[in-house]
Amino acid sequence: MKFMRIGEIGAERPVVQAEDGSWRDISGVIPEIGPETLADLATRLAGVARDGLPVVDPDGQRHGAPIARPRNIWCIGLNYSDHAAEAGMPVPKEPILFTKPGSALGGPTDPIPLPRGSVRLDWEVELGVVIGKPALNIAEAEAMDHVFGYVAANDISERDWQIERGGQWSKGKGYPGFCPCGPVLVTRDEIADPQALAMELSVNGVTMQQGSTATMIFGVAHIVAYLSRFVLLEPGDLILTGTPPGVGMGKTPPVYLSDGDRVSLSIAGLGRQDTPVRAD
Amino acid sequence: MKFMRIGEIGAERPVVQAEDGSWRDISGVIPEIGPETLADLATRLAGVARDGLPVVDPDGQRHGAPIARPRNIWCIGLNYSDHAAEAGMPVPKEPILFTKPGSALGGPTDPIPLPRGSVRLDWEVELGVVIGKPALNIAEAEAMDHVFGYVAANDISERDWQIERGGQWSKGKGYPGFCPCGPVLVTRDEIADPQALAMELSVNGVTMQQGSTATMIFGVAHIVAYLSRFVLLEPGDLILTGTPPGVGMGKTPPVYLSDGDRVSLSIAGLGRQDTPVRAD
Repeated sequence: MKFMRIGEIGAERPVVQAEDGSWRDISGVIPEIGPETLADLATRLAGVARDGLPVVDPDGQRHGAPIARPRNIWCIGLNYSDHAAEAGMPVPKEPILFTKPGSALGGPTDPIPLPRGSVRLDWEVELGVVIGKPALNIAEAEAMDHVFGYVAANDISERDWQIERGGQWSKGKGYPGFCPCGPVLVTRDEIADPQALAMELSVNGVTMQQGSTATMIFGVAHIVAYLSRFVLLEPGDLILTGTPPGVGMGKTPPVYLSDGDRVSLSIAGLGRQDTPVRAD
Repeated sequence: MKFMRIGEIGAERPVVQAEDGSWRDISGVIPEIGPETLADLATRLAGVARDGLPVVDPDGQRHGAPIARPRNIWCIGLNYSDHAAEAGMPVPKEPILFTKPGSALGGPTDPIPLPRGSVRLDWEVELGVVIGKPALNIAEAEAMDHVFGYVAANDISERDWQIERGGQWSKGKGYPGFCPCGPVLVTRDEIADPQALAMELSVNGVTMQQGSTATMIFGVAHIVAYLSRFVLLEPGDLILTGTPPGVGMGKTPPVYLSDGDRVSLSIAGLGRQDTPVRAD
C-alpha cells in the first residue's frame, strides 16, 4: 500500500492509494499515520474496501510528511563507501548512529530553512525506513518483520554546526525542517529489494547526487537489528540510512545552499521532493 | 511547587505538595505532568486550593520519573572542567550536544539495566532542566522564562558503546532505562540559584561523585539560549547539563557497574535516587 498525508501543517489527513490509482481519505478509519497507529494499521485497514472511501485529489494541496511526527529519527552516518571517501572519513566498521529530533520533520514541498548563522547548509538524499513494530535486541533474520515501509528523505545538515562545534553531529542535524520527508510512504511488501533503489538529488536543476541503495555498506536489515542492541526502536520511528556521494561538502570547491535555491530529489518508487530553501 | 508522579509504570498519577507538606493528587485537574501540559500547568493550578485535593501517601508506592516521557532529552557533554580533565578531553569552547531518546527515561528507584553485551556501564549525576515554553533562537536574558523547573538525573552511559563504536556518543546513551529521573520536579521559583546546588553519587555506599553545579562551565541560562539556536526546545523537554568529576571511567583503575550494584544520588533540593543495577 501507498500512503500520503494531505493538508495544511497540523491538519493533514491520511490517504491511501486505491486499486484504480486514486487517493482515498482514511481519516474515518484511522486518525493518523504515525507512532500511535502504525503497529496495527494493516489490521485496521484489512476489512476496509478502499474503493468505497472518499476520493481526495492531492494536486494543488500541500503534501505533509507521509508519517506523523515520530518519537525518534535515527540516522546512520557514512553508510555509502563513496560518500565516506568524499567526506574524508574512513569507512566505518559498524553503523555510526546520530539523531534528529522529531521537530525536524517536514513535508516534501515545505521550505528548507536556512537558519540564522548558518554558513554551510548541505543536502543528503536518503532512504528512510519506517518502523512498524517495537524492536529491542532482535536478530537480523527477523529485522524486516519490524519494518513497516519506506520513504524518501533529505538529511539536511549544517556542516559548520555538525563538525566544527564539539564533534558531536546532533547540533548540525536538528533545526526545525531539517528532515524533508515523503511524499509517499510505501509498505515493505511493495518494495521488492530495498537494496536496489536508484536515488538522485539536484540543486537548481543541476544533478548533485546520483546513486543506488545497492552501494550501502550496511543494509536495512542489518541496520535495524544492529540499532536494536543499543536503543528501543518504536512504531513510527524513522531511520535515515545514509547518503550516496555528491553532497555539497564533497564538491571541489564545496557548494552550499543559499536562500532561494531549489532542492529536488527522488528515490525509485518513493516519489519526488521539490523544496525551496528559505532564510529563516 | 513540587511535583511527583506516583504509581506503576504507565499508570503514574501526578501529585503536588500542599502547604502542609502532604502530597495531593492533581489527576482531576491535569491528566499528566509532561509535554502536553507543562506550558499551561501554572495557569491550570492557579485557582485550585491544593489543600482540598485528595491526599496521596507516596511511601511504599513506586515513584515514576516526575515528568512524563519527553519529546526530547538534550544532553550537554563535558560541562564541568574537572570532569573534562578526568575524561582526558579538552575543556569545550562551547556546549557539546548529544541526545538520549525519550524511551531512556526511568523512575528514581527503577532498576538501571545492564544490557546484553555491556562491558563498561557508568554513572553521571546531573542537574536536569525541564523546559516549560517553546524556545527557538532566544536570547540568554530571556532563557530562564522558558525553564519550568529542575530534576535530578543520572546520565547512564555504556562507555564502550559511546566511545569505541564510531565516535558519535548516542549509541552508548540511549538504552531503555538509561535516564533515571526524579524523584521530584521543583519549579524554577523554588531554586534560588541553580548554579549553587550540591550533588553527590555513591555506588554500594561508597561516594564516587561529589560536586556542585557552581563548577559548570556553561550555566543553565547559557545552555538554554545556546541550544535554541540549533534545535527547537519544547515544553516537557529535559536537558541534562553535564556531570562533575568522579565517573567510573575516570577512576584509577576504572570502575564500572555490575549486576546487583546499587547507585544512590542526590542533588540539593531535588531529592534522592536509589537504583539497583540489574542485568537485562
